[in-house]
Amino acid sequence: MLKNYWYVACTSRELGSEPLGRIICGEPVVIFRQDDGSVAMLRNVCPHRQAPLSMGSVDGKVLRCRYHGMEFNAQGRCTHIPSQDVIPPRAHIKSYPCTERYGLVWIWPGEHALADAASLPSLPWREDEGWNGDIAQYFHVKSAHVLMNDNLLDLSHVAFLHADSIGFDSRRLEGDPLQVTVEDAYVSTRRVFKNTMQAPAHKAWRELKEPIDRTQLAEWRPPCFVNVLARNENDEAQVDLRADHFITPETEASHHYFIAMARNFRIDDEALTQKLDEGARQVHSEDVEIAEAQQTMKALTGGAPDMALKADKAVTAAHKILARLEAAELRGHEPVQAESVS
Amino acid sequence: MLKNYWYVACTSRELGSEPLGRIICGEPVVIFRQDDGSVAMLRNVCPHRQAPLSMGSVDGKVLRCRYHGMEFNAQGRCTHIPSQDVIPPRAHIKSYPCTERYGLVWIWPGEHALADAASLPSLPWREDEGWNGDIAQYFHVKSAHVLMNDNLLDLSHVAFLHADSIGFDSRRLEGDPLQVTVEDAYVSTRRVFKNTMQAPAHKAWRELKEPIDRTQLAEWRPPCFVNVLARNENDEAQVDLRADHFITPETEASHHYFIAMARNFRIDDEALTQKLDEGARQVHSEDVEIAEAQQTMKALTGGAPDMALKADKAVTAAHKILARLEAAELRGHEPVQAESVS
Amino acid sequence: MLKNYWYVACTSRELGSEPLGRIICGEPVVIFRQDDGSVAMLRNVCPHRQAPLSMGSVDGKVLRCRYHGMEFNAQGRCTHIPSQDVIPPRAHIKSYPCTERYGLVWIWPGEHALADAASLPSLPWREDEGWNGDIAQYFHVKSAHVLMNDNLLDLSHVAFLHADSIGFDSRRLEGDPLQVTVEDAYVSTRRVFKNTMQAPAHKAWRELKEPIDRTQLAEWRPPCFVNVLARNENDEAQVDLRADHFITPETEASHHYFIAMARNFRIDDEALTQKLDEGARQVHSEDVEIAEAQQTMKALTGGAPDMALKADKAVTAAHKILARLEAAELRGHEPVQAESVS
Repeated sequence: MLKNYWYVACTSRELGSEPLGRIICGEPVVIFRQDDGSVAMLRNVCPHRQAPLSMGSVDGKVLRCRYHGMEFNAQGRCTHIPSQDVIPPRAHIKSYPCTERYGLVWIWPGEHALADAASLPSLPWREDEGWNGDIAQYFHVKSAHVLMNDNLLDLSHVAFLHADSIGFDSRRLEGDPLQVTVEDAYVSTRRVFKNTMQAPAHKAWRELKEPIDRTQLAEWRPPCFVNVLARNENDEAQVDLRADHFITPETEASHHYFIAMARNFRIDDEALTQKLDEGARQVHSEDVEIAEAQQTMKALTGGAPDMALKADKAVTAAHKILARLEAAELRGHEPVQAESVS
Repeated sequence: MLKNYWYVACTSRELGSEPLGRIICGEPVVIFRQDDGSVAMLRNVCPHRQAPLSMGSVDGKVLRCRYHGMEFNAQGRCTHIPSQDVIPPRAHIKSYPCTERYGLVWIWPGEHALADAASLPSLPWREDEGWNGDIAQYFHVKSAHVLMNDNLLDLSHVAFLHADSIGFDSRRLEGDPLQVTVEDAYVSTRRVFKNTMQAPAHKAWRELKEPIDRTQLAEWRPPCFVNVLARNENDEAQVDLRADHFITPETEASHHYFIAMARNFRIDDEALTQKLDEGARQVHSEDVEIAEAQQTMKALTGGAPDMALKADKAVTAAHKILARLEAAELRGHEPVQAESVS
Repeated sequence: MLKNYWYVACTSRELGSEPLGRIICGEPVVIFRQDDGSVAMLRNVCPHRQAPLSMGSVDGKVLRCRYHGMEFNAQGRCTHIPSQDVIPPRAHIKSYPCTERYGLVWIWPGEHALADAASLPSLPWREDEGWNGDIAQYFHVKSAHVLMNDNLLDLSHVAFLHADSIGFDSRRLEGDPLQVTVEDAYVSTRRVFKNTMQAPAHKAWRELKEPIDRTQLAEWRPPCFVNVLARNENDEAQVDLRADHFITPETEASHHYFIAMARNFRIDDEALTQKLDEGARQVHSEDVEIAEAQQTMKALTGGAPDMALKADKAVTAAHKILARLEAAELRGHEPVQAESVS
């Protein structure tokens, strides 16, 4: 797993006044919001008796352990131990660089010195007043994170797995060929279906006079982010939906899956927001179901290799980039941040 | 586990138009019914990304993967890959010999060349118009399959475990001795209780003027089939119930348990069929409960050996036959099919 | 785990006419009540096919296996095997010394010869007519038993974990210092809060004119017993609640947790008994929740060492005593019983 990258730890909406415990890249993390609203992240283990600090409570700037009341600030410094005055150095715990933006809370699980808020992915549509970016979803998935990564790098699955909602006629997979672009730390796939019908779900969002041109553009960046643009357009209008996918490893066999969605149409229509949210939840549940089933099968068959198809050009390219970046991280080189190459 | 034998994979009723995934003798299998009604069985792993094909759908003669739309015919040949024309040889997958008879769907998990439909067990009462064979039950059991095998080879347990339903007075275990017959690939136990009362459940099926003679005949054949005849008779009538038990290993510590029942009395009485079905479900649940409890205890105690009793003559004989057949299969000899010796 | 000690196996109320299966110090035990009311304990594994005897039934003085009807008396002697006359020696099974007192059923998992009913802990308040000792609770806890042991040896946690019910102002942890007494096989902690308010829960039990003096006395004895006295007193009255805690290891990572409570006020008030029972259940659920969370964290972090604080003087002392007693038990020395030193 790449460590020197920003990962999404939770959505802003998930983090209220109670601390939130989550395992990220194999490490137990507690996320909390101080009284000024800023987020902090610490190792989720009290050094006293290893109770999870996420069971505790926030008091102003500090997080108090629920068990025996030890207190820690945002830097992981222990600031109070009941029944004693001296605070020994080993009472301090690890903190993680973190920030909040785009309605998402971000963690840098790697080296402190390398963390750089400027290297967050750029998601301008999530801050543009002409867009509605209210939807942010979270799924806990019992599969290796690479399975969800690969899912998003081969959107031909949409024709089959999501046939009833956002699918398209699978016969067009040959007629409308896939354009794959590979750069140093970037892979994109683009497919434009000319003169086609709107997908059932798209029609419900904003029905256009048919036929339309439908664009499916997926832009992948390490460690595991995929920005997907779904566009329907004709002479009447251009309707864009952007679904940004963030995949955060939990353990070797599980991950956190976040999807933030933004649209440039009917942006004040809250009923539509709810309908989109529900529809997307159904779609992403199908992805979760298949990833978990793959994981089960891989466990059963002892990890036999996958078979790359022509449609997997982007998957293969991304795996090569990841292997190179992981090797570089092991050698101690600087990471290649997503934004630096896009 | 013996491989060159027919095993029950599912009941006919379980297999509708959707494919069915099941692990059999350690192998993931997908079972599906083609549009002509015939059954087919393939390895339940798409070679592309190892999604289970049982999540897919049947289209005429082919099974389509739900994830990216690869299609496979009943022989396991890949017949279509979306986005490409060439089908590489490693896209083909393993198929299993299979057939459907007696209201049951059968798999041959071993070598194709040795599969022979004529070697299916003979269950004439399941095809005789004078019998009602509507009941077919399935249980998933979290225990080694041999525990259920042994259960059926020592029916003295009926006096205790099933005392309230099909039980008998345990004091008769000494008065009415057990006849055990052992052949090359066959073991039977027979007990006749002369001048006895009908069991509570038997009475409900068809009450006879008491006393009656009650026969309990169990015929075991490898790999793991036991045909049980329960007969109540006197001058008034002879009432036969046949319960055929089929045990299919899933993993080392779990199995599939099928019971097909047929009766030669009140054969058009659907209310009785339902009552029998419910009663038998209760009885078999008791067997499942004890097998799972044994499995738990064996795991806890590290597999200490069982203690053979006099009542275990048939169990011991069957274990010897199984050991001989397993050794023969490992040496590559031809299997001894059940029907060839009975 | 210490073996040559009395442990609580179950509460008297848990043991009706059906046998009860429980894993104690890693060993499967079946507990049953003979027709004269006396308790008996055997290894919970039928030697025939390893079915748990706890699925069976009691008939007078014997426990009958539910599977094939073998019978065992309180000494573990097999007294009957259906279908045969000869009872082989290996049909006999292990029995455990056991007794019933204080509304609790006790087991001695170690050597028979060392068991001595006189070495049971002394709990006079549970047999005194001036006390109501009706409350006995049981929790199954998925954590190492030492975590619950340590919980009770550092009652500073009450100020935090149980703040809403039996808590106190945590600032008094420094003002009212802890008195720790350590003997050969005894550790106690005592804290007296002078001129304080009653805890919310205490007030509901019996409200006194404030201020009061509150005493919190915990007396620990090996293997894992803690008698806690909670006293509220002023000129008006002295109100005592005694909560006796018994921790019985199940496996390395789980334990049985029993709490017996007695009070010397409003002893005929059954509504109060129920209220106390419910309140205490909530408090102990909080302890269970934290112990299970610690266990999860310890599994995740690979067992990093705890950090002892000043408040842990009693914990550290008890751990030393346990280490000494375990070493002695391994060397085969006689155990030091709780009562012999108190």
